[in-house]
Amino acid sequence: MQVRLSPSIEHLIRSLQKLPGVGQKSAQRMALRLLGQRQQEAADIALAIGRALENVRPCSRCRNLCEDDVCQICADDSRDISALCVVASPLDLITIEHTGIFRGFYFVLQGLLSPIDGIGPDDIGLADLEKRLDSPGLDEIILATDSTVEGAATAHFIAELAQQRSIRLTTLAQGVPMGGQLGAVDSITLGHALSGRKPYA
Amino acid sequence: MQVRLSPSIEHLIRSLQKLPGVGQKSAQRMALRLLGQRQQEAADIALAIGRALENVRPCSRCRNLCEDDVCQICADDSRDISALCVVASPLDLITIEHTGIFRGFYFVLQGLLSPIDGIGPDDIGLADLEKRLDSPGLDEIILATDSTVEGAATAHFIAELAQQRSIRLTTLAQGVPMGGQLGAVDSITLGHALSGRKPYA
Repeated sequence: MQVRLSPSIEHLIRSLQKLPGVGQKSAQRMALRLLGQRQQEAADIALAIGRALENVRPCSRCRNLCEDDVCQICADDSRDISALCVVASPLDLITIEHTGIFRGFYFVLQGLLSPIDGIGPDDIGLADLEKRLDSPGLDEIILATDSTVEGAATAHFIAELAQQRSIRLTTLAQGVPMGGQLGAVDSITLGHALSGRKPYA
Repeated sequence: MQVRLSPSIEHLIRSLQKLPGVGQKSAQRMALRLLGQRQQEAADIALAIGRALENVRPCSRCRNLCEDDVCQICADDSRDISALCVVASPLDLITIEHTGIFRGFYFVLQGLLSPIDGIGPDDIGLADLEKRLDSPGLDEIILATDSTVEGAATAHFIAELAQQRSIRLTTLAQGVPMGGQLGAVDSITLGHALSGRKPYA
């Protein structure tokens, strides 16, 4: 039986469902909790969204999210200007930063190429990336797009841009994940891990 | 390695973590998605929260969330005034309404008694419930609080109020859940299901 909620609650539930990973049931639970005993938290969230929308903008160099003209990474003189890592979102950038391994700069695309959905090079900022490729001192581009059809298409497009400029291209290694049980790894990944095998150290 | 994000993004992530079921990683994913390619959705959510906080209030009869003086259920003349179902939150009310089985009225507490957390009868609205118990025509109270220590304590408190007024008290049946495999049911539940066994129809 469908229960009719008041219009404002229904509207809030529909809005919350737009959050990644939130379905109808979670959105309902969130909305009722916020309006029931958590009104202060609800007001905080609305305020935080408003403030972030006002203050946060893309970094003028790499398109990462920041509050100044350039982001903290681009403003960091100690980083290596010879390496540029191309990712599809600010979340991918942060995920790579968390490793602590990469000390170069980034370029953040606004998603991945997807001709089926009508998403072309201009929609994801590839023209800006092309300009960036002409900056002096750039020696290596690391293609860190998703391991999907769209990720591969985007990587292929960037590879052509880089090859025109004779910049070295690398991509993330594929293989067995840390802690992964061999029986649970899919055969394509395992195939990549086999052909990319390394001397046992 | 900990990556420092801009203050507005950090604030948004901390706020989103207050949503039920949202941890640090999900909050980060939500915040970056909202500020990256989903700015319109972000504005929608902030607006929906603001509008709901402004419009939604507790029903003056049952404390359910609504936008008028009384909620749709309390305003429904066709419902049975002899039965009152006591729940701990608007979500519990909706969950029971979804069954389509209950046609009486509700009383929505603001949570459950929890002396350990300093939550007493006045904090959850038991004084209002006591007044409600004196309304004419009331014949049965259904105790539909959680099957937890707090739920049992709250039910016990309400039972005493009802017994002083000689109102009939019932509670939800406990037993094996629909589709439940016997091997997966805990022994206390199975014990309740056994002692509450019914003729096979």
